[in-house]
Amino acid sequence: MIATTPIPPYYAVIFTSVRKDEDPEYSEMSELMLELAKEQSGFLGVESAREDVGITVSYWRDTESIKNWKKHTDHFLAQKKGREQWYKLYKVRIAKVEREYGFGK
Amino acid sequence: MIATTPIPPYYAVIFTSVRKDEDPEYSEMSELMLELAKEQSGFLGVESAREDVGITVSYWRDTESIKNWKKHTDHFLAQKKGREQWYKLYKVRIAKVEREYGFGK
Repeated sequence: MIATTPIPPYYAVIFTSVRKDEDPEYSEMSELMLELAKEQSGFLGVESAREDVGITVSYWRDTESIKNWKKHTDHFLAQKKGREQWYKLYKVRIAKVEREYGFGK
Repeated sequence: MIATTPIPPYYAVIFTSVRKDEDPEYSEMSELMLELAKEQSGFLGVESAREDVGITVSYWRDTESIKNWKKHTDHFLAQKKGREQWYKLYKVRIAKVEREYGFGK
């Protein structure tokens, strides 16, 4: 649900997307990507929701972990179809989390 | 949908939340907050989706704009009920977007 992340600084990859029409393979691909992420060194957590737009925010220890993760996803997606086949449009933003606050557990 | 943002650096406020039970006033409050955000100096765009978890990412020119926006929301939410009344839990992360890439328009 809400990722439990360490005290900042750490990194966020904000992936926003609009999907193409329903593809039965999509959710399988999506789950595999998530499993792959969780195995990576430096992975801290992930949050995801989709309505008109899909937002997946994954959290990482540093830019090095993100670079390695990108290498894996590029390879994985190349085998699968490539991101352009699943999405009408998407945007990836790499951001350094500087502070955080919240409420509840 | 997907926010059109300038060339980095700029800032992202990642607001992740789990709501309490349905409250008819919630969507009104939520829309008003969005309108308020759009009026603020330094506001660049917003993306939002909710399933089990809600994710709203708003984009801002700098930390100063975010500080002003927080002042407004605190004031607004104090009048309304306060965030703790609407949400079971939430987390706010302030992050500096360092780079971005994407596909599609």
